[in-house]
Amino acid sequence: MTNAKLDILAIGNAIVDVVAPVDHAFLSRHDLHPGSMRLIDGTTAAALYAAMPPGQESSGGSAANTAAIAAMLGARAGFLGKVADDQLGTVFRHDITAVGVEFPSVPSRSGDPTASCLILVTPDGQRTMNTFLGAAIEFSAKDIDPAVIASAQIVYLEGYLFDPLEARAAFLAASHAARAANRKVALSLSDAFCVERHRAELRAFLKHVDILFANETEITSLYEVNSFEEAIEAARHDVKLAALTRSEAGSVIVHLNEAISIDAVPPSELVDSTGAGDAYAGGFLTAYTQGKSLAECGALASRAASAVLSQYGARPAPSAFA
Amino acid sequence: MTNAKLDILAIGNAIVDVVAPVDHAFLSRHDLHPGSMRLIDGTTAAALYAAMPPGQESSGGSAANTAAIAAMLGARAGFLGKVADDQLGTVFRHDITAVGVEFPSVPSRSGDPTASCLILVTPDGQRTMNTFLGAAIEFSAKDIDPAVIASAQIVYLEGYLFDPLEARAAFLAASHAARAANRKVALSLSDAFCVERHRAELRAFLKHVDILFANETEITSLYEVNSFEEAIEAARHDVKLAALTRSEAGSVIVHLNEAISIDAVPPSELVDSTGAGDAYAGGFLTAYTQGKSLAECGALASRAASAVLSQYGARPAPSAFA
Repeated sequence: MTNAKLDILAIGNAIVDVVAPVDHAFLSRHDLHPGSMRLIDGTTAAALYAAMPPGQESSGGSAANTAAIAAMLGARAGFLGKVADDQLGTVFRHDITAVGVEFPSVPSRSGDPTASCLILVTPDGQRTMNTFLGAAIEFSAKDIDPAVIASAQIVYLEGYLFDPLEARAAFLAASHAARAANRKVALSLSDAFCVERHRAELRAFLKHVDILFANETEITSLYEVNSFEEAIEAARHDVKLAALTRSEAGSVIVHLNEAISIDAVPPSELVDSTGAGDAYAGGFLTAYTQGKSLAECGALASRAASAVLSQYGARPAPSAFA
Repeated sequence: MTNAKLDILAIGNAIVDVVAPVDHAFLSRHDLHPGSMRLIDGTTAAALYAAMPPGQESSGGSAANTAAIAAMLGARAGFLGKVADDQLGTVFRHDITAVGVEFPSVPSRSGDPTASCLILVTPDGQRTMNTFLGAAIEFSAKDIDPAVIASAQIVYLEGYLFDPLEARAAFLAASHAARAANRKVALSLSDAFCVERHRAELRAFLKHVDILFANETEITSLYEVNSFEEAIEAARHDVKLAALTRSEAGSVIVHLNEAISIDAVPPSELVDSTGAGDAYAGGFLTAYTQGKSLAECGALASRAASAVLSQYGARPAPSAFA
């Protein structure tokens, strides 16, 4: 892993989050599955937004959050994704570059707005996400420059990119370019419903993956097994390295014949789980590209996740890691 | 005060806040006076935004915050102010109507964006505000419908409206319409620098004011006196009712020969002082329009301010007052 200009290049949907607190009755009324992410169209987004309480807007997107956390932790990070040339696109670009992430992607000018995710946070800190992809749907293989991919030690891909068809092509192009340049490919499964939607494709894609991130529901869904232990054994067979998370029960790093248990770091207060998995990946990959041991990678991952859990939104203030 | 459709109609600049934490060195580097509000043009706003850390966007505007807090506390509230037909204008409209505030103002279509305020919060919880008025500058006397003014028990005006010339005309039109309909006029002095800019006009305007809100620096600046006590006596001479705040030292309600001391309610944690004065006015006026005693008005005002101080941004979740 020499001569890399970047440590981590993340590729994903470029999204601005709209976060608001609701009670569980609100989720029931709108037929929303607690803790899930679903894709919605512009009309549904407008109707749900109209029903929501006042929100706070902040930059999000799973892989983008990972890049931002990695940069705050000292990694050289980049991000590729598609925003529109609008106010929320400006917010997205400002926020990710303000923490030092390179963001070379050119904005879309097709007229679709920057993607937004309506995030409903219940009193238990769980977030239920409703994503309107907007301009993010236009991210395509044309946005993948092999030279940029080759400039990073690790290309990190979010499973959500399997949703838009053009993005899936970009996803594959990026992984091939990374392989050709002898770089590593990391993948997050993103969400159990995303795994349901694309199980076969995601499993087939694992042969291109060096480092897999998933939580318990995602990995058991991927392999259609009933226990975390069975999922660990299945993952061990498919990828060289997997970091599998279990919320407050910590995580397990699976590497060859090893399974290293990592403790969770309890947050000072559980406020909002949005972005905890993204932060875990950001911490893990930062330590990994610095040549740290897998136990150290897991420890930094847990600390990063904890910082995010204790506040509203997916990205803490940069000072949280100072 | 009979037959009013609304309890409180607030008129002010319609602004979306961009809040970010900075240290005092950042303020020095950018020649910013801690705790003040200054007006900036679009170019300066873009340059300051580029230098700022990632932000959180949420609806603001001083009088708009007061209307939102009043609505959350159960008042029938309305707001008049000018947004653009853009994404931040949509955010502003959503957030204020989501808490039950009527917002009949039509958006501007001139091309200027919705006003934004870059709010820099230092570790002591103090906020330094940089306002780009954008579309808010177009609010004019044409936006004042006397029938709407007459529909509210109290018209609440923010001193900041003295900055844009057209808004100043709207301000005067609103106060005349309120007087003609035998409604009460409340005024917030907004900011000590705003008082500096418009001292003579604001003092002349007090003859139209029934209820004055100001903090210690604003009221001593208005009267160019050295002590809070002198300011109290001067205010007693000019207005029938004044609520004068002193941060953690509480507030004094000045009414005829009385001066009622109100304790501050210490926040659980002092996070961000943005909007504390706005919330105080919202709490006060809500109790006032319910016919409560002045001591009760002050107590609700202090509780509302405390709820805002303990969190980021000018408006707490509606559940904060549930």
